[in-house]
Amino acid sequence: MTPMFDRLALIGLGLIGSSIARAARRHGLARTIVAIDASADVIARVEALGIADVTTRDLVTGVSGADCVILCVPVGANAQVAALIGPHLKPGAIVSDVGSVKGAVVRDVAPHLPAGVHFIPAHPVAGTEYSGPDAGFATLFENRWLVLTPPPDQDPDAIATVQRFWEGLGSNVEIMSAQHHDLVLAITSHVPHLIAYNLVGTAYDLESVVEQEVIKFSAGGFRDSTRLAASDPTMWRDVFLNNKEAVLEMVARFSEDLAALARMIRWGDGDGLHDLFTRTRAIRRSIIASGQDTAAPNFGRADGIAATPGRPGDPPISQ
Amino acid sequence: MTPMFDRLALIGLGLIGSSIARAARRHGLARTIVAIDASADVIARVEALGIADVTTRDLVTGVSGADCVILCVPVGANAQVAALIGPHLKPGAIVSDVGSVKGAVVRDVAPHLPAGVHFIPAHPVAGTEYSGPDAGFATLFENRWLVLTPPPDQDPDAIATVQRFWEGLGSNVEIMSAQHHDLVLAITSHVPHLIAYNLVGTAYDLESVVEQEVIKFSAGGFRDSTRLAASDPTMWRDVFLNNKEAVLEMVARFSEDLAALARMIRWGDGDGLHDLFTRTRAIRRSIIASGQDTAAPNFGRADGIAATPGRPGDPPISQ
Repeated sequence: MTPMFDRLALIGLGLIGSSIARAARRHGLARTIVAIDASADVIARVEALGIADVTTRDLVTGVSGADCVILCVPVGANAQVAALIGPHLKPGAIVSDVGSVKGAVVRDVAPHLPAGVHFIPAHPVAGTEYSGPDAGFATLFENRWLVLTPPPDQDPDAIATVQRFWEGLGSNVEIMSAQHHDLVLAITSHVPHLIAYNLVGTAYDLESVVEQEVIKFSAGGFRDSTRLAASDPTMWRDVFLNNKEAVLEMVARFSEDLAALARMIRWGDGDGLHDLFTRTRAIRRSIIASGQDTAAPNFGRADGIAATPGRPGDPPISQ
Repeated sequence: MTPMFDRLALIGLGLIGSSIARAARRHGLARTIVAIDASADVIARVEALGIADVTTRDLVTGVSGADCVILCVPVGANAQVAALIGPHLKPGAIVSDVGSVKGAVVRDVAPHLPAGVHFIPAHPVAGTEYSGPDAGFATLFENRWLVLTPPPDQDPDAIATVQRFWEGLGSNVEIMSAQHHDLVLAITSHVPHLIAYNLVGTAYDLESVVEQEVIKFSAGGFRDSTRLAASDPTMWRDVFLNNKEAVLEMVARFSEDLAALARMIRWGDGDGLHDLFTRTRAIRRSIIASGQDTAAPNFGRADGIAATPGRPGDPPISQ
């Protein structure tokens, strides 16, 4: 099989970049994988892990001759990176990214790219709460959705190439406008992270409940939120600052709805509560049916649940 | 080994009641396990599962001669159940419960119990998003915390007996006042459920994003909230209505903090966001270190992550 790209350059070898490196190699999608990262520590880990063919800390050297360059940096760093690589891109090269916001990426990156370079922004809706090159893995994108937001005037062949690349990594691809992407992801990703960070912050600041109690009794539900609230701080700072409008709109709706719920509690509207709690159950069933989450209780966590029928082999967590 | 109880009566064979039945039998803690449930369907399932020695739909028959009775019903049903069983309890019997709120349980149950019966309220901080007798399993309480909130004048021997019972089921036991329990659980369990229900409700009501998009792109973080939002509607309605004061206080703090976060986003306070997001990471590490959650990425979900080193054997979810 002929690799899709002769030379694939990845800028930023964190969770996502290093997962692309691993998956692209596993599926034979690039003849040469170039890993570019400003951090000497990251480059040293990439070399030790052996997940790239070429490593460099220099952007210009790294992108030279690449027929595809993927920016895998926090979205706040895109403008600077694009300005530096723009003049050194091979004519006809494809530039893509993995940012969780898309309107800001188009705004920040497009002006720096020369004519003849194809810009196809992308967002893999996949991840974990861990960061860095050691956190990546080759199957991260399997059965996950990848959103392409090509500007209206982009080359159909370049769009099709990026689509095939991500399908090759195991993703399902959907194409939409950058603006609609930012609205959809505000509710399916950005606001869920924001309220998780917020809940953990609120718990942390209480004077009536000590931190050790929050930790001990977290299995009552709180622990679920701490996973999202452990996500990369720099990446998420940049997401919120670069999808301000949609996030604030969704936060306002969430807050209105929460105020209405609090009012139901205060005035004892049991039927209103029960109605909502019944409706929300149905959405989880749909998510499970669509393959976007597991049906196993507690996400199939390897804790007490391990010994139930159908989940053999997982050891209980030691204290 | 002599069983701790000669006759253990469980009222309500849902997730928690049926898990107690299974765990008590596995650990030999009761000579006879009596399952009492008002629903003929539930009794039929309990009989089919074979998890109790005696089954009945009649409260009076069920509690007769029992040396321990555990109420495992939604907390809103406690008063009625207590009024019905009170006159038929064996002198010296222990009455306990598993309710997620404790102040209201003491208020509702204690007045109906005759002198000479020991009332030791309990709350196992454990569960899943599933309900009913089929959802229970014997290891649900292992390594989880169990809170006892005995009223001040209760018999130390009865308290010690209930403590040993739960330790026998695998739990760690902590004793505190009902009031403090309700405050601690408001932040570690009740409010996390409320905001999960609320987030899913907000997403459901959007007119700009269709439901199918919410489902497809839920792996961006939203899917985590849907687990708590799939919990039993009746149980949770009763929790909120019966821990009103603490829940509303915690919701008010959460909302203040969220408004402050939204303001940071609006005015571009990246340092403020980064500071919070860094602090919240530490709490998850403590929860993992204390054995209350798994360190596996994405809770160790059996999806794309399955094929990574260290999590072999879990099949990917089929679409």
